[in-house]
Amino acid sequence: MAEHRFQGIIPPIVTPLHDDGTVNFENLDRLVEHLIAAGVGGLFALGSTGQVAYLTDAQRLAIIAAVARTTRGRVPVIAGAIDLTAARVAEGARALLAAGADAIVATAPVYAISDEREIADHFRQIRAAIDAPLFAYDIPVRVNRKLAPRLLVDLGTEGVLVGVKDSSGDDVGFRRLIAMNAAAGRPLALFTGHEVVVDAMAMIGADGAVPGLANVDAAAYVRLWQAARAGDLARALTEQEYLNRLFEIVFCATGRSGDAAGVGAFKVAMAAVGLLDSAAMTPPLRPLDDAAVARIHAIVRDVGLRA
Amino acid sequence: MAEHRFQGIIPPIVTPLHDDGTVNFENLDRLVEHLIAAGVGGLFALGSTGQVAYLTDAQRLAIIAAVARTTRGRVPVIAGAIDLTAARVAEGARALLAAGADAIVATAPVYAISDEREIADHFRQIRAAIDAPLFAYDIPVRVNRKLAPRLLVDLGTEGVLVGVKDSSGDDVGFRRLIAMNAAAGRPLALFTGHEVVVDAMAMIGADGAVPGLANVDAAAYVRLWQAARAGDLARALTEQEYLNRLFEIVFCATGRSGDAAGVGAFKVAMAAVGLLDSAAMTPPLRPLDDAAVARIHAIVRDVGLRA
Amino acid sequence: MAEHRFQGIIPPIVTPLHDDGTVNFENLDRLVEHLIAAGVGGLFALGSTGQVAYLTDAQRLAIIAAVARTTRGRVPVIAGAIDLTAARVAEGARALLAAGADAIVATAPVYAISDEREIADHFRQIRAAIDAPLFAYDIPVRVNRKLAPRLLVDLGTEGVLVGVKDSSGDDVGFRRLIAMNAAAGRPLALFTGHEVVVDAMAMIGADGAVPGLANVDAAAYVRLWQAARAGDLARALTEQEYLNRLFEIVFCATGRSGDAAGVGAFKVAMAAVGLLDSAAMTPPLRPLDDAAVARIHAIVRDVGLRA
Amino acid sequence: MAEHRFQGIIPPIVTPLHDDGTVNFENLDRLVEHLIAAGVGGLFALGSTGQVAYLTDAQRLAIIAAVARTTRGRVPVIAGAIDLTAARVAEGARALLAAGADAIVATAPVYAISDEREIADHFRQIRAAIDAPLFAYDIPVRVNRKLAPRLLVDLGTEGVLVGVKDSSGDDVGFRRLIAMNAAAGRPLALFTGHEVVVDAMAMIGADGAVPGLANVDAAAYVRLWQAARAGDLARALTEQEYLNRLFEIVFCATGRSGDAAGVGAFKVAMAAVGLLDSAAMTPPLRPLDDAAVARIHAIVRDVGLRA
Repeated sequence: MAEHRFQGIIPPIVTPLHDDGTVNFENLDRLVEHLIAAGVGGLFALGSTGQVAYLTDAQRLAIIAAVARTTRGRVPVIAGAIDLTAARVAEGARALLAAGADAIVATAPVYAISDEREIADHFRQIRAAIDAPLFAYDIPVRVNRKLAPRLLVDLGTEGVLVGVKDSSGDDVGFRRLIAMNAAAGRPLALFTGHEVVVDAMAMIGADGAVPGLANVDAAAYVRLWQAARAGDLARALTEQEYLNRLFEIVFCATGRSGDAAGVGAFKVAMAAVGLLDSAAMTPPLRPLDDAAVARIHAIVRDVGLRA
Repeated sequence: MAEHRFQGIIPPIVTPLHDDGTVNFENLDRLVEHLIAAGVGGLFALGSTGQVAYLTDAQRLAIIAAVARTTRGRVPVIAGAIDLTAARVAEGARALLAAGADAIVATAPVYAISDEREIADHFRQIRAAIDAPLFAYDIPVRVNRKLAPRLLVDLGTEGVLVGVKDSSGDDVGFRRLIAMNAAAGRPLALFTGHEVVVDAMAMIGADGAVPGLANVDAAAYVRLWQAARAGDLARALTEQEYLNRLFEIVFCATGRSGDAAGVGAFKVAMAAVGLLDSAAMTPPLRPLDDAAVARIHAIVRDVGLRA
Repeated sequence: MAEHRFQGIIPPIVTPLHDDGTVNFENLDRLVEHLIAAGVGGLFALGSTGQVAYLTDAQRLAIIAAVARTTRGRVPVIAGAIDLTAARVAEGARALLAAGADAIVATAPVYAISDEREIADHFRQIRAAIDAPLFAYDIPVRVNRKLAPRLLVDLGTEGVLVGVKDSSGDDVGFRRLIAMNAAAGRPLALFTGHEVVVDAMAMIGADGAVPGLANVDAAAYVRLWQAARAGDLARALTEQEYLNRLFEIVFCATGRSGDAAGVGAFKVAMAAVGLLDSAAMTPPLRPLDDAAVARIHAIVRDVGLRA
Repeated sequence: MAEHRFQGIIPPIVTPLHDDGTVNFENLDRLVEHLIAAGVGGLFALGSTGQVAYLTDAQRLAIIAAVARTTRGRVPVIAGAIDLTAARVAEGARALLAAGADAIVATAPVYAISDEREIADHFRQIRAAIDAPLFAYDIPVRVNRKLAPRLLVDLGTEGVLVGVKDSSGDDVGFRRLIAMNAAAGRPLALFTGHEVVVDAMAMIGADGAVPGLANVDAAAYVRLWQAARAGDLARALTEQEYLNRLFEIVFCATGRSGDAAGVGAFKVAMAAVGLLDSAAMTPPLRPLDDAAVARIHAIVRDVGLRA
């Protein structure tokens, strides 16, 4: 079967900021070059890890324009058009595509209380409004709704979706999605968003991964992916276990929100090895405290992370 | 104690549409006049009942401009600035105020995964960006987060919030909110969003109600409110029980989403008595089916609703 | 309409313990006498407030035997037969009735994952196995399932249920339950379990209340109830607001489980005014810490609680 | 490192019933012999698949006595002591051990609302009351609570737990549990309860699996497990994909409860190939309807299942 255009490690890139909360475009360029050099299969900008929810439309467009300009077509640039429902998502998606994105990621309706037919129509309405590949982003913890495997594969067969980023935390559902997709002739490219199980997901048939932690060590994820696809299970496991020790950084900021603890940890680790000038997060998120930063630094040192 | 500027029945107005899904501004004008004539204490446009999540920014501004123009200051116009997080909400709120809104309603962060301090900062950031009264909208079923009474009252005392619309379904929390607010000198105007308990909430100290069903029979809610405030419990109960029989319309469309069943029922009933030309809902929401419409019409007839 | 046999304030009695965790039957007798003297309409033993989940079958039977012996038929004794599913509940219920209980309370299936028809059959199976009135206990926070108003009223009409204790925190659902029950000829006696809204629930038609806080001040709840039923809203409100200030004791033990913070607070307050010898809770629940106890004592003093 | 005593495929055995709902001990004996012949590593009786929640204490003891008698020590017999909290669980566990069980499985507290320290004390209290290995059963969908990896490993190190059955649906948590357990010297034997990912879990370090579907085709799971442990990924994947096609039987009974649809499907398939005389479920669960049975039979045929 033909390979999907979208495959491999596609980091959901963080949005580098200056300490005053404005976007640091110089750092963004540097990060894009760093990730491409590591061998990633694409770049996913404006995802949850990019703190898309906190960015205005103007900021989002400027970020995509910068990423596309730096990328120069070497890998596809996928943009999160994260908004409440279809009409708003479609409007945002058209602007992001005009700014240089190659593909769009959209979630189920947010804030709305939808049934399954409405969710299907939601994705159809978005796809009809754009001339580009559309991915579904399955992230119930943020949108309060799990996307059913059957729905996704049917929308793939229908030509509405080209792929799925699965951050559902539901491995049974993801396995069923892989099986149903295979039975339907693989209309969808299937990506896991879970940092710690990329080896296993590769082995059972995922097309790629979108791990936030790849901002911190993209090269290790690329090695892991190549080993898994080559059938070298032992090597994949070794890389994954290294990455899992590193992933413990996201549990360091106890008592903080999920948004602050996770992205905060990635940024602190990236700053520690020189990938970012600042670990600042989007307002109103305050920086991690010194104790959490010290714990993250200790893990970074223990596992031997280098940029 | 001084009366709050915002009080009484403040309908969260539906967004009248043509059958093709575009906004019916003629119907909107008519609805605004109808509600003002019924004696409402204000108008809340762009709420969940107004299907704000499905409207683009341009549509939102046009709606507020129309409502403000028709209202001519007779009652305050409160606009829902419903978006993901503070920077986006603030941007939207400024535009809505420029279009004629008198006050803004905002929810806790959506899509983001926030802690309590971040939620407080979220409201502070919005309030700092606007020069108008700000209400918090407590609606966990949509934003996946309950606002704590202590947080709300503290933000009231701090001057960030002037009031709360409570659609939390948590009557214990609302009672504690009333008590804490009273103990703090009533910085907040407190509104219930629950159609069927307005009598009880009035009796225990709410400042008003924002019932979606008031689109269908505003006059009954105004009579209920006046009776309750006058201490005429029997009269208030009678009006409430009439309204509760009418409210059963929202349970007629079985197997449909919450958004479609509720707003759909309000619109079908409004169309039945001539308040709207069409019961169309915002795409991708499809109309209620004939069986549901028939059940709604039967209830409308049985309770004797008239415009 | 005829009065229900079960009505008014029916405290869900705590289970008094010695410091070693064994049941203090002398304190239990004293508590029963104290509550009956206060004018309660019945006693609900082995509820969540009685920490029924932590008691063995032998302890449960001994408690019901003691309560029934002390009560001597002056008020009905209702026993919680709290177990996983119907066969187990029925077995427990028969033993509790043999030990002296007058009626049984059962929840939806626990641990099981049931649909609505199975839940109806669950209650039918329990009722068929006993010769006594059966109440449904609607407590989704513990059993992960809300009982639908329609289901409850239908089971009432069918003769399976005589009443409902509503601890669902869903005031809209409770209001609909009251309306549906009235329309069906009032087959059910309807009790609210929410301490802080008894005034409002009385005014809208509840038959009684089962407030855990009535262990601490039963007399105030009885006065509240009598005022509400007599239509003296101002008096009812005054009593309720006093009780709500007292209820803040359950929020004093921050960082503790719901079970420990709530029942722990009731027991600390009861011990403070001499109603119990010890505030010990069922193992493995450890006592509240000194800081929490001090905060509870301060509230008890501030509101002027006396036994 | 030493092998754990508990490892490999340990089916959570269904409870065979006669059509009248009584236990079919002849079928139970036959099932036990069938599973042992297939090469299972142990038998887990009285789990969710065994519909333990619906069985009385007397039924539970009779089942364990029968299973132990038939097993004659060839493999360990693990019994689910499923009850609300520690005192009740401990009492049940002692009886089950006396009836012949070799080890006990217990969940977090049910019905109770506990914090993490109370959950740890809960397991400690159970372990202190018995003289046998204790497993934790992590099943949030039934007990409304996820067990934290850190807690589990600490209880392993402390000697309270010997293992975990993970039915949490949280693959990230399970991966972290494997890593923390390895770092602590492997005090725990770790089992996945998810039928469709046993290949992946074996490859990343699970000690075994407890798949309900192993009632239907134990031999395939044993082959899968042996292939995975031998590093034969392709073979493991092939067996898993066969089993996953078979697992679709649990999605055939649409509109039924999770308990009825899942166990019902297993029993229908087992009856289809002669492993059971009846697909009857524990009351109040009614049989699957003819359409669902037909769909299950079609899958059984399509995949070529034989006993």
